[in-house]
Amino acid sequence: MSAPSASTNAPASSQPECRTTYEYKIPDENTKNYSVLLNKKDDLQMVEIPVPKPGKGEVQVQVKATGICGSDVHTWKYGAIGIFEVTEPIILGHESMGIVTEIGEGVSTLKVGDRVAIEAGIPCSECEQCMSGHYNLCPDVVFKSTPPHHGVLANYITHPARWLYKLPDSVSDEEGALLEPLSVAIAACERVGVRFGKSLLICGSGPIGLIVLAVAKAIGVGPIIITDMQESRLEYARQMGADYVYKVDPSKKDVEAAKEIRSILGCAPDYSLECTGVESSFRSAIMATRDGGCCCMVGVGKNDQLLPVNSFAMREVDIKGLFRYHHTYPTAVSLVASGKINIKHLVTHRFDFKEALEAFEIASDYRTGAIKVQIFN
Amino acid sequence: MSAPSASTNAPASSQPECRTTYEYKIPDENTKNYSVLLNKKDDLQMVEIPVPKPGKGEVQVQVKATGICGSDVHTWKYGAIGIFEVTEPIILGHESMGIVTEIGEGVSTLKVGDRVAIEAGIPCSECEQCMSGHYNLCPDVVFKSTPPHHGVLANYITHPARWLYKLPDSVSDEEGALLEPLSVAIAACERVGVRFGKSLLICGSGPIGLIVLAVAKAIGVGPIIITDMQESRLEYARQMGADYVYKVDPSKKDVEAAKEIRSILGCAPDYSLECTGVESSFRSAIMATRDGGCCCMVGVGKNDQLLPVNSFAMREVDIKGLFRYHHTYPTAVSLVASGKINIKHLVTHRFDFKEALEAFEIASDYRTGAIKVQIFN
Amino acid sequence: MSAPSASTNAPASSQPECRTTYEYKIPDENTKNYSVLLNKKDDLQMVEIPVPKPGKGEVQVQVKATGICGSDVHTWKYGAIGIFEVTEPIILGHESMGIVTEIGEGVSTLKVGDRVAIEAGIPCSECEQCMSGHYNLCPDVVFKSTPPHHGVLANYITHPARWLYKLPDSVSDEEGALLEPLSVAIAACERVGVRFGKSLLICGSGPIGLIVLAVAKAIGVGPIIITDMQESRLEYARQMGADYVYKVDPSKKDVEAAKEIRSILGCAPDYSLECTGVESSFRSAIMATRDGGCCCMVGVGKNDQLLPVNSFAMREVDIKGLFRYHHTYPTAVSLVASGKINIKHLVTHRFDFKEALEAFEIASDYRTGAIKVQIFN
Amino acid sequence: MSAPSASTNAPASSQPECRTTYEYKIPDENTKNYSVLLNKKDDLQMVEIPVPKPGKGEVQVQVKATGICGSDVHTWKYGAIGIFEVTEPIILGHESMGIVTEIGEGVSTLKVGDRVAIEAGIPCSECEQCMSGHYNLCPDVVFKSTPPHHGVLANYITHPARWLYKLPDSVSDEEGALLEPLSVAIAACERVGVRFGKSLLICGSGPIGLIVLAVAKAIGVGPIIITDMQESRLEYARQMGADYVYKVDPSKKDVEAAKEIRSILGCAPDYSLECTGVESSFRSAIMATRDGGCCCMVGVGKNDQLLPVNSFAMREVDIKGLFRYHHTYPTAVSLVASGKINIKHLVTHRFDFKEALEAFEIASDYRTGAIKVQIFN
Repeated sequence: MSAPSASTNAPASSQPECRTTYEYKIPDENTKNYSVLLNKKDDLQMVEIPVPKPGKGEVQVQVKATGICGSDVHTWKYGAIGIFEVTEPIILGHESMGIVTEIGEGVSTLKVGDRVAIEAGIPCSECEQCMSGHYNLCPDVVFKSTPPHHGVLANYITHPARWLYKLPDSVSDEEGALLEPLSVAIAACERVGVRFGKSLLICGSGPIGLIVLAVAKAIGVGPIIITDMQESRLEYARQMGADYVYKVDPSKKDVEAAKEIRSILGCAPDYSLECTGVESSFRSAIMATRDGGCCCMVGVGKNDQLLPVNSFAMREVDIKGLFRYHHTYPTAVSLVASGKINIKHLVTHRFDFKEALEAFEIASDYRTGAIKVQIFN
Repeated sequence: MSAPSASTNAPASSQPECRTTYEYKIPDENTKNYSVLLNKKDDLQMVEIPVPKPGKGEVQVQVKATGICGSDVHTWKYGAIGIFEVTEPIILGHESMGIVTEIGEGVSTLKVGDRVAIEAGIPCSECEQCMSGHYNLCPDVVFKSTPPHHGVLANYITHPARWLYKLPDSVSDEEGALLEPLSVAIAACERVGVRFGKSLLICGSGPIGLIVLAVAKAIGVGPIIITDMQESRLEYARQMGADYVYKVDPSKKDVEAAKEIRSILGCAPDYSLECTGVESSFRSAIMATRDGGCCCMVGVGKNDQLLPVNSFAMREVDIKGLFRYHHTYPTAVSLVASGKINIKHLVTHRFDFKEALEAFEIASDYRTGAIKVQIFN
Repeated sequence: MSAPSASTNAPASSQPECRTTYEYKIPDENTKNYSVLLNKKDDLQMVEIPVPKPGKGEVQVQVKATGICGSDVHTWKYGAIGIFEVTEPIILGHESMGIVTEIGEGVSTLKVGDRVAIEAGIPCSECEQCMSGHYNLCPDVVFKSTPPHHGVLANYITHPARWLYKLPDSVSDEEGALLEPLSVAIAACERVGVRFGKSLLICGSGPIGLIVLAVAKAIGVGPIIITDMQESRLEYARQMGADYVYKVDPSKKDVEAAKEIRSILGCAPDYSLECTGVESSFRSAIMATRDGGCCCMVGVGKNDQLLPVNSFAMREVDIKGLFRYHHTYPTAVSLVASGKINIKHLVTHRFDFKEALEAFEIASDYRTGAIKVQIFN
Repeated sequence: MSAPSASTNAPASSQPECRTTYEYKIPDENTKNYSVLLNKKDDLQMVEIPVPKPGKGEVQVQVKATGICGSDVHTWKYGAIGIFEVTEPIILGHESMGIVTEIGEGVSTLKVGDRVAIEAGIPCSECEQCMSGHYNLCPDVVFKSTPPHHGVLANYITHPARWLYKLPDSVSDEEGALLEPLSVAIAACERVGVRFGKSLLICGSGPIGLIVLAVAKAIGVGPIIITDMQESRLEYARQMGADYVYKVDPSKKDVEAAKEIRSILGCAPDYSLECTGVESSFRSAIMATRDGGCCCMVGVGKNDQLLPVNSFAMREVDIKGLFRYHHTYPTAVSLVASGKINIKHLVTHRFDFKEALEAFEIASDYRTGAIKVQIFN
């Protein structure tokens, strides 16, 4: 792990320089390909696997940077994520960028040496959901690192060219790997129809909450209030431009929290994006949202939650949830490349690929203050 | 109460002829004005009140027909409806039509003798909700019969001319009074964006569920499946044109019911309209709705309900609720007057105004098989 | 051509019985395959072609019924349709149904003997338009009978299984071939967001105008006014349920026509669907549409048209156009199969395949009173 | 007129400091009230009028800053604006802010001394358009300075309190008066549904085009290309952050211009906002817009324009127009007050109220390089 060093635009602390890597190694017969494999619950290992060859429409990618997602940690610790159980060993990781090292048959849009972001889900492109613009709901999607599909945390992977996005030089490796959680934040804003000049409540100042904040700021949303239980996270959010912050006190009633949020914000938020998955937070968010507004569950928590039905029904507050993203990568690349959004400071910890298991340890320990942990190759 | 007699288009049983009343009596000093007053919980009386005079922009209406809504019965039995408590005596009733008997200052759109449907809610017309097209969410709305506002179950009332709708002769008194629940059904369809050629699940075959069914049929929605616990109600729905029915078995798990509904319908419903307010039914509806669809709570039940958050979030099923209606009366009049929809057979019991208390008894007793009870004047 | 005979539900005249064909002939080496080939402008011939073999994902279809579209006639007479010129001979026809006679590799959704409607456009399923729900705008779509792609007016064709729709027995051959223009009408209603209880102006009582009328009636739209220059067409529309008709007088100013349409309809139409392509009609439709409404060009006429920009801009009337359809076939099948819509009476002339050239002559001569001419095999 | 002086954030040239005025004079019997009155075409005068007293729900405002709109100049020079003719003398001006000097009966939301922006249109709040969220389309709107309604270019006016917006100190007088054209730009973006990460073509770099550019930048839209015939305007736009500019050459064909715009932008724009009203520019914009996109006429030009119907119909490009704005002021205040948008540099010329006629001369002469001319009191 490299020590954080100075950087001017980091909102919360000093930062190392971001890297924009152009070097790549075309694998030969001696090249080893290591992966981060979850054998079963709580059993994570570095394992050598064959270097895969790209099939038709695919390219081979040398993975350069990968962020650890909360869902990776959850899968590791619980042997499952939501309804998806780990029944066979799988490679983790789905927040990655890399460099193209081999072109498969029929691929004309990419060439060896191209830096690319990897969209981890590969939909079928033929079903009703795919053809109606909701490919995130494709029942046959292969989402890398969601059991039983292998993830991309390896030295070399293959991926369909169609689900890779060429990165301009102005997008660093760190940012390239952040495009995946940025996609979630963009999708959350689009799911709810967040619009400029409207007020927003963001629940939770973890990586997703903070990236949602960054997106909301970049698209003229305001005023924005963001919540968390940790003062340090709220301070971070404040430095990122949150108009208001709200420290969650678990001993308070949900309706009380909702009232206080409205009072601090100066109005009932037009939209609320719940990024923790926690029932009490969701309840407060629903109650806080203005009549006729929309409250969306972006986080993932327990399935059965006690929700205040009359509160949302009789005030016609729409309740939504988010499942991944669709059509977000071009927008994500554009927002970062044009400088409209700056999220690279969220990478608080960086590890070499060979330190990947240590990276997971840090990412799973909230006491480290880690926001986003990335692994470099 | 008049005995049901034969009618050709009644789906469930023989029906008395509907009436289209043109006679009215302009009140003089001797005219008595009786009302159905709820003193307090469980204490309903016929009480004489002064004949009201229309103010500016208002007219006086001789009420001719009034349906009893489930919310009237609930207010009577529980002394409250939702968050609205009966703290002072209030007149009940909000499903009414009548004849104009006096014109107030500045009214030019109506004249004495006009048959009119009464839209029971009077919004402020100036607030943000009113001016953005959602006057049902007006915080200052005066909704007649919702505490503390008097309802319209009296011989004579006054009402703003702007919230009265002239009825053509082709709309009977029964139908005129049914425009209010029809408005709820129309609003439910619009809230969810129900479209022709799409599949629909309706939970509950009470008055609202059945009127939703009638609207859905009239606008080309299909296939439609409707649920209930009573076989007789399902049979009624079948005769009204439900493509499929589903008998609810309370001993079954919600997820099982959802599966069976999908299986009978032949697909997952694009939309679900929950018209019972019951938690288990709402849960089944959410689980049954297709990925990317919408499930709306139209009924009113307990506030806190245990909802399957991951089920709707990870499948991006929108959860909505309905609060009354807005902009529905012109459509409701048009659907009935043009014959596109036939709901008058839903009036199973008819009472004279002086039998109003008996009417409430019948309406509150599910063993009577009553669907809609109306009171005539 | 078979003479029209009696039928009860025909709105305009007696009708022959519709056919629901189950017989098919699996081609052998002696089977001849004839097609209706346009060599060049004004030069239409019956030509023998090889019986095609289905490729991967395809099936072979014995075409049983094909309607002649105005665009087929236009291509024949002008050697071009819009920007698409006939530079090589092409087979015409794109309104067809048939029976599956051979299954290609990898097809599991259909079997020999299945009656199917043919969706004539085959999009790429991979581009941005396809993946965002607008496959009608796919730049690489292969639309059969639009130059340079061969149409389906032959004894045997092949087609991707994915773009065939199995027909239930309740859909006759005539109706199966009408699903294509019905798709246009459905798409027109969806493009404009036509909703129940809203008023509609339909310009032109040709096949598309009349099918739009049928759809609008089936989905609760009303009141509806429809226009034409021919009294007989207006009478036909009236029998189909148009609330009002308007006879177009070319000597009248557009603004005058707009006023008269509003006056007859009793209001400014919420939506207008222009189905003639004629500039003066489009202008009247724009002017007639209510402030904040929508006017859509469904017909195809000359490119440059003088439009009243201030009239639509300062009244915020949206101007749209339609290009074919997407996602309409399942809805079309459902509307017809369930009996919600009846359009089979629009088939006024029927020909055997060997009389196909005569069929084109009739279809191209407005004096014949032909609405829809179909060719049977 | 005060000479321009230095300012750091002016994109095009040095700028005088903006003022934030708190002084006001409550009129007494000796107070004179001058107005800028258009007697008839080409006849503009300073005329003394009585100081108006606020009626019920109104307040009296000492007008402090007023921008001259192109429509003011047009009305002056042509004696009409669109369909509205000057038949009696009217006061001009509708881009104003001021300070409250007297409170009328029933007003509780404002007090003497409040700085306010004036929304110039007063809708009826009761009609269907008002109640459905489109009060800009209210047929009975009183829009100040549109004949026959007097404008607000006077020392003292009265206005309904409901259509005044309290300004925070962070909004200067210049900005307060710019909220009106900013409202137009916001409304244009909302009319078209402009979203972040999408590409945009703006036609014309006049005040509205440039403010649209500022809004688009503030809400994350990009890439953006803007056009004009004047190089200096394009340079100004470039400094404001336009990603690309396009110099219009009137000798070029519209289709050629469309191609060049696409080529420079690197794609077909998702949306086009035409801010000149000129037919050739509108045509190019329509042709440039991507398939399935939207092109909106924001400018006002001649009514009848030759539009490429097949080009927009067969590519399903929506054509819209804008009429003023609705619900934009709170957003406009928020964007300026929060610093999300900076448009004050657009005020290139400033005049004292007594120099108002000279201000109109400058505003009407394009050779002056004036973008926005404001008059201060």
